[in-house]
Amino acid sequence: MSYDFYYWPVIQGRGEFVRLALEQAGAKYTDVAREEGGMEKMQAYIAGKEAGVLPFAPPFLKHGDLIVAQVANILDYLGAREGLTPADEAGRIWAHQLQLTVADLVQECHDTHHPVSTALYYEEQIEEAKRRTANFLKLRVPKYLGYFERVVARNRSASGKLIGDGVTYPDLSLFQCLAGLRYSFPRAMVRIEPQVPNLIALHDAVAELPNVAAYLLSERRIPFNEHGVFRHYPELDG
Amino acid sequence: MSYDFYYWPVIQGRGEFVRLALEQAGAKYTDVAREEGGMEKMQAYIAGKEAGVLPFAPPFLKHGDLIVAQVANILDYLGAREGLTPADEAGRIWAHQLQLTVADLVQECHDTHHPVSTALYYEEQIEEAKRRTANFLKLRVPKYLGYFERVVARNRSASGKLIGDGVTYPDLSLFQCLAGLRYSFPRAMVRIEPQVPNLIALHDAVAELPNVAAYLLSERRIPFNEHGVFRHYPELDG
Repeated sequence: MSYDFYYWPVIQGRGEFVRLALEQAGAKYTDVAREEGGMEKMQAYIAGKEAGVLPFAPPFLKHGDLIVAQVANILDYLGAREGLTPADEAGRIWAHQLQLTVADLVQECHDTHHPVSTALYYEEQIEEAKRRTANFLKLRVPKYLGYFERVVARNRSASGKLIGDGVTYPDLSLFQCLAGLRYSFPRAMVRIEPQVPNLIALHDAVAELPNVAAYLLSERRIPFNEHGVFRHYPELDG
Repeated sequence: MSYDFYYWPVIQGRGEFVRLALEQAGAKYTDVAREEGGMEKMQAYIAGKEAGVLPFAPPFLKHGDLIVAQVANILDYLGAREGLTPADEAGRIWAHQLQLTVADLVQECHDTHHPVSTALYYEEQIEEAKRRTANFLKLRVPKYLGYFERVVARNRSASGKLIGDGVTYPDLSLFQCLAGLRYSFPRAMVRIEPQVPNLIALHDAVAELPNVAAYLLSERRIPFNEHGVFRHYPELDG
């Protein structure tokens, strides 16, 4: 059964973590809001005009009658069905914990350019953004990436992945974070990357997975831009 | 088998969402860091000196050999074992989605007093905090609470709860959010509460659950204070 995926059609944003999992799995899916009339379909769910549970916001996934919202929740569901999470309960919980930590990093990264409010333009909060970003790059990125670096190093299978031997959805999400941080803060990442060699190797290994590589070259991969989570504002890249 | 719960000993913070679930379930647990020598035990896990997976930060739960970190992940695990989440997959996913949306609200609330950095004191970011909080109270609190209000209204069992007839862990977490928002922003909440009567009734119903009521009166319930997520700074309560 095919998946219907709902997310904003012109950004990678939070939806990209789901798109990467669908692509790596080789799953059959429709990126609904990128099709004719798809935005109206998505809005109908958010407005509560459709049957089933009410998503707070995109992204959400429809699979049969089931609606699953929130990125980490979607990935836990997809991961179990598509072989992107460990089959045992302890492994599945561990993958989910890593994903929720990725989600925290993503939220903190988003707030570098919107530290006051998502209802205001970046240009209306640029001074606050400069202050927040300086702290984010100095303290938070090294803390998060240093944590994931240690997780890869502690993986007993020495696979270069986060969990066990195989690719799990947090590997894909960490790839996306690293790609996004490089896009957003190229100068800062030149300083940070030598501290996390395991993660750089993981990023490169994910980029070379055949399904991921084909996706990244396709038109389905929306380029990074200044409407998503990861934005390049040179004045923030200290 | 008893649970070992690890969290900072002097605040409610994010750990309180787990404490409430443990208490409502009547589960046997140790709040480790509040015992003699407990802080050292907790730090050993964070430092990676213990066997098992590496938590990024407290709270985390140890149950046998299993370590579960991240609030929503802990609650999904506890909920399934202690009857605080629906037994069917669709219901469990729905509860988790609601919890992850609560987590987003909690993060946004935390950042009202720390919009620049958690490494700086509130007093060092008070101007940014005023601006962020004004937006949070005007736009974000009504949006989140309005969403949960609709979820209660759409619950076909008309139980006044979020899901079905019984108490689930997102009910407990929403109680905690409402209590925290009232503590933090008493003036703003006077204006907002009339818009969400279902949630006020839910808050009161949770407070009257015998296990929760006993907990709230006990010394195990740490009072709100200005070190946790929900802080009362009168100058922010517009």
